[in-house]
Amino acid sequence: MSESINRRGFASDNNAGVHPDILEAMASVNNGHVIAYGDDPYTEKTIARMKQIFGEDTGIFFVFIGTAANVLGLSSVTRPYHAVICPDSAHINVDECGAPEKFTGCKLLTVSAPDGKLTVELIAGHMHGIGFEHHVQPRVISITQSTELGTLYTLNEIRKLADYAHSNDMYLHMDGARIGNAAVALESTFYEMTGGAGVDVLSFGGTKNGMMYGEAVVFFNNALCEDFKYLRKQGMQLASKMRYIAAQFDSYLANDLWKRNALHANRMAQELFLAVKDIPGVEVTQKVESNAVFARIPAAIIPRLQEQFFFYVWDEERSEVRWMCSFDTTTEDIVRFASLLRSML
Amino acid sequence: MSESINRRGFASDNNAGVHPDILEAMASVNNGHVIAYGDDPYTEKTIARMKQIFGEDTGIFFVFIGTAANVLGLSSVTRPYHAVICPDSAHINVDECGAPEKFTGCKLLTVSAPDGKLTVELIAGHMHGIGFEHHVQPRVISITQSTELGTLYTLNEIRKLADYAHSNDMYLHMDGARIGNAAVALESTFYEMTGGAGVDVLSFGGTKNGMMYGEAVVFFNNALCEDFKYLRKQGMQLASKMRYIAAQFDSYLANDLWKRNALHANRMAQELFLAVKDIPGVEVTQKVESNAVFARIPAAIIPRLQEQFFFYVWDEERSEVRWMCSFDTTTEDIVRFASLLRSML
Amino acid sequence: MSESINRRGFASDNNAGVHPDILEAMASVNNGHVIAYGDDPYTEKTIARMKQIFGEDTGIFFVFIGTAANVLGLSSVTRPYHAVICPDSAHINVDECGAPEKFTGCKLLTVSAPDGKLTVELIAGHMHGIGFEHHVQPRVISITQSTELGTLYTLNEIRKLADYAHSNDMYLHMDGARIGNAAVALESTFYEMTGGAGVDVLSFGGTKNGMMYGEAVVFFNNALCEDFKYLRKQGMQLASKMRYIAAQFDSYLANDLWKRNALHANRMAQELFLAVKDIPGVEVTQKVESNAVFARIPAAIIPRLQEQFFFYVWDEERSEVRWMCSFDTTTEDIVRFASLLRSML
Amino acid sequence: MSESINRRGFASDNNAGVHPDILEAMASVNNGHVIAYGDDPYTEKTIARMKQIFGEDTGIFFVFIGTAANVLGLSSVTRPYHAVICPDSAHINVDECGAPEKFTGCKLLTVSAPDGKLTVELIAGHMHGIGFEHHVQPRVISITQSTELGTLYTLNEIRKLADYAHSNDMYLHMDGARIGNAAVALESTFYEMTGGAGVDVLSFGGTKNGMMYGEAVVFFNNALCEDFKYLRKQGMQLASKMRYIAAQFDSYLANDLWKRNALHANRMAQELFLAVKDIPGVEVTQKVESNAVFARIPAAIIPRLQEQFFFYVWDEERSEVRWMCSFDTTTEDIVRFASLLRSML
Repeated sequence: MSESINRRGFASDNNAGVHPDILEAMASVNNGHVIAYGDDPYTEKTIARMKQIFGEDTGIFFVFIGTAANVLGLSSVTRPYHAVICPDSAHINVDECGAPEKFTGCKLLTVSAPDGKLTVELIAGHMHGIGFEHHVQPRVISITQSTELGTLYTLNEIRKLADYAHSNDMYLHMDGARIGNAAVALESTFYEMTGGAGVDVLSFGGTKNGMMYGEAVVFFNNALCEDFKYLRKQGMQLASKMRYIAAQFDSYLANDLWKRNALHANRMAQELFLAVKDIPGVEVTQKVESNAVFARIPAAIIPRLQEQFFFYVWDEERSEVRWMCSFDTTTEDIVRFASLLRSML
Repeated sequence: MSESINRRGFASDNNAGVHPDILEAMASVNNGHVIAYGDDPYTEKTIARMKQIFGEDTGIFFVFIGTAANVLGLSSVTRPYHAVICPDSAHINVDECGAPEKFTGCKLLTVSAPDGKLTVELIAGHMHGIGFEHHVQPRVISITQSTELGTLYTLNEIRKLADYAHSNDMYLHMDGARIGNAAVALESTFYEMTGGAGVDVLSFGGTKNGMMYGEAVVFFNNALCEDFKYLRKQGMQLASKMRYIAAQFDSYLANDLWKRNALHANRMAQELFLAVKDIPGVEVTQKVESNAVFARIPAAIIPRLQEQFFFYVWDEERSEVRWMCSFDTTTEDIVRFASLLRSML
Repeated sequence: MSESINRRGFASDNNAGVHPDILEAMASVNNGHVIAYGDDPYTEKTIARMKQIFGEDTGIFFVFIGTAANVLGLSSVTRPYHAVICPDSAHINVDECGAPEKFTGCKLLTVSAPDGKLTVELIAGHMHGIGFEHHVQPRVISITQSTELGTLYTLNEIRKLADYAHSNDMYLHMDGARIGNAAVALESTFYEMTGGAGVDVLSFGGTKNGMMYGEAVVFFNNALCEDFKYLRKQGMQLASKMRYIAAQFDSYLANDLWKRNALHANRMAQELFLAVKDIPGVEVTQKVESNAVFARIPAAIIPRLQEQFFFYVWDEERSEVRWMCSFDTTTEDIVRFASLLRSML
Repeated sequence: MSESINRRGFASDNNAGVHPDILEAMASVNNGHVIAYGDDPYTEKTIARMKQIFGEDTGIFFVFIGTAANVLGLSSVTRPYHAVICPDSAHINVDECGAPEKFTGCKLLTVSAPDGKLTVELIAGHMHGIGFEHHVQPRVISITQSTELGTLYTLNEIRKLADYAHSNDMYLHMDGARIGNAAVALESTFYEMTGGAGVDVLSFGGTKNGMMYGEAVVFFNNALCEDFKYLRKQGMQLASKMRYIAAQFDSYLANDLWKRNALHANRMAQELFLAVKDIPGVEVTQKVESNAVFARIPAAIIPRLQEQFFFYVWDEERSEVRWMCSFDTTTEDIVRFASLLRSML
């Protein structure tokens, strides 16, 4: 089965495999016995490395996947009568099968945000009934960086949301499933974009940027995660052989592997954007700021195009599609794809 | 850090690393793009292989860990007012930080079982209040094979529990975190010990027997898992890059890797048993039927012994310890350990 | 404290007290011992009376309040990965502090409905991702009759929603906190408006129409409530001295007490509407079809008006208020209120 | 139906009706409009009266029933990974259909306590794994006063448990469904037995002692109930017409109604005990300290006895029954019952 190359497409950055450096790092820790569940030297070393990045006083915990990072991170700062304000396109709202509600008990209060970005003005519509027991109480503002629509919050925009959150006794949560792509696009460090801009809880992901599995929850205030280890275990997210997650993050963060992968994916998205934007019948619908291109194309050609390069329809009614680039996308892929698309229009 | 060999001990079979064949299998699927979340050829192939083992009509789903396999498996056959009957030593009762209660809403009804094994007689004490709305309603009998105490249910014992469950409108769940060790000890196939003996839902584990991560939930009645895919996603257990779990199971089940690993671990436990049983001051407390040895030893020597070979105290009051053997335990380890132990007594 | 009369206002029909017939009925069952938790002759008799109204094959259960009737009714027909579609103004969405999400685990999918009424077209926007495990699965359409905005669904509109629900493997739930007001307005029987129009689960309320406490959950298909008695107990809604709820419903339904109360409240709302509609500065914003009048009035006068007649601001931004009439509202109240309002404008 | 008197039995103190003073008090507040949900003068007055009893700094909240008082009270001082230690006979463990687990997520850790009473020694068996994330973390000790077996904790015993709880970072919860019976038996004030002895959270019940419905949750430390109003609403326990609960408690606590009722029920239990204890074939199994008598009697006579005086079998295997006395039990009832019992033996 593995003899021919599985065809690359633009479906999702998690359809890609694992960067070879990551696999190598995993093999390198496959050595004798260490204590399970994270009390091992590899996990210790990686946490230390991450504290250099995010701050010595942060709390850092590994879980298996992004959905869990989001849900458990939110869980640690809420009680079930709280609410989480997010854009209607948020992963926590549309792609996690209700896991946030099931696990935290909280309601999500959504706002329509055509570019995937919250603003203080959009949030304000949900800031009523405070102190009134009939209503859920807004407790968290949740943003995604880069957003589900491939757009970016500037550092200043994040800071504004954080300030608003904090002045209203709320926390700012960031879903960073694609934070690497955002960081290279904004030429920002991870810290500047997160704790430095006022983020309280971060889901720090790598799987969409070349890792195999494993995500980190980062708390920029240790008081917020005093009992997180219990929430993680009860949340079914404590890995016994933790060293293999630690090894991945160590390799991902060392030697700028994350940066090289993210830069490449973003550049490919720019190439794709340039290659398709002037094709008649193609309307790019979102700013191309990270590794995604959203476009409207004629519905009729979608199935035929998908036969050669798999991708997802984002909004059937509007005939809008999403093309994601990943660390292993090649210029040749883009040239072939754009050429095929042009030939169909 | 990885230059010297991490010292092997007897703490747990999940302190061991990953069998090299497993790592190799993971690398072999690291090839181009495939659809995420399990809709890929590797997952398809492994599921097909497992259906050959467990039956064509079984439902088979991968999750990340054993706790999740247990909790989600139980969740699929219960409603929150149900109860799960299990021995007080069950992993679901003492080692999952309340995840079963939190996620399913169900109460666990425990019985004291000194050898870790349920019997119909022990269960009967909880079979009252049926149909009475003030009481939780027993719905599942949960057993562990091999048990937390290293003991085994015979096929006949499993069948009796299954018959009792079914004749009382209940299901039989098996936590098979160490089912490989049980299968080789009983010279049974996986099917004979599970679906063939009446088990309805199985947590099929490999991590304690040489895999890295990933567990399978196996339903022997497809009607029981019609909505399991939603429970898994909402339960934060749907892996995006599923192929790397599939590859592990494929390798684990091919060429009897699981069997070789389990046989070895069990043999090492026998060797260990033979090496320590006659040392004065050592009292083996459980039958050594799989890969664990339980023994009482003088409390005073425990810390000094742990310095050389890490292991866990099982029952502090009784000064009872647990020594687990794994696929990579060596005869030399045992000889050295027994010699050290003898020298201390 | 009870010597002077507590002032009547237009805040809510649950600010009113209890109809004297109800109090008398409660006293009439205060006689010796009966078995607790509903296994008593009074409860039996009332259930029998209600089956004459709703159908012999219905399942009827008493709970304490409307929030519980809604939440437990929804719970009985959902699993946590399901979703409930409702208007954004629904009581379950805005007035129950997230109880539906906490107890059922389900997400509420809301639609903007300016008159408080769902339509098939509005619902359709949420009918995607069916069978796709990343999304919650729509399972229930929930409507309120009369709506939170005092408007009414016609029988035909209810039937259309029921047909749509059933053809999409969903159920139709009705929050009938004010169903009495709806029934008299539409000159419909309770059955015609509920089970007869395709409703599957009904919250049948009386507290807002002269009862003290107690609500009924009515299932028009017994298969839907096979385990409801457990959900009710686990949901903390099983009354020990059930006879006092049964007695209220018995009196409420006998001799058309419910009808007299509801007719009166609706008529008072019509009187109020007629009295205020032509006052300059008053803009009635919803059709007055049951016992509520919604209107925009100048923000400046609201506090002064509230001093004399308490009522709630519905939408602060729009300066929209709600005036509810109840079974004990008098023409004199309305004349005085309208006169005061006119004098302020 | 209400023309003949419903026969009194010994099934439960909640099979009795409502004391006439309570009914009268409910009628006395049926006067005009007051704000719903507890913001009314009657509730305010009753809360003030209760603060005189329990302390000015207590938090006092009304709910509908004892199960809810227990569950919500526990919920306010726990997170889902916590555990509640209680006797195996506790109402929260056997009579609430798993509501504590479902609503709080917590596990109950039970101990066998033949007289229904916890001791520090019994609790200690569960005090391990502290700080270890695989185990639930004990957070609350829950006792019942008087116990499910009719026995009593002395003030000193309560104080010892409270001290133990507090020195282990835990809270002491008291289920006071029958606290009135305990208070008169111990000649203690409510405060001395609760907050004064170190209790942190109390379920204060009256329904088993002559009230109709309604229970109070009392927090002896306001910091523990800062968000209780949300938990109550989300827990489906916020009564709209709260004044009718407030009126009951007001009457119950005024003029020592509670005390007269409880004294009477306890005296009847003493009379019953004296009347049956020497009948051959009757073995009283628990100290008769409040309003319950537990006894073993021959299984054969139980059904015939129940025909005349209904009561419950407590332990079928042991042929042990429970006879509860209530505020309306008469000496004549006891004479007739004892005579019947004697005639059957």
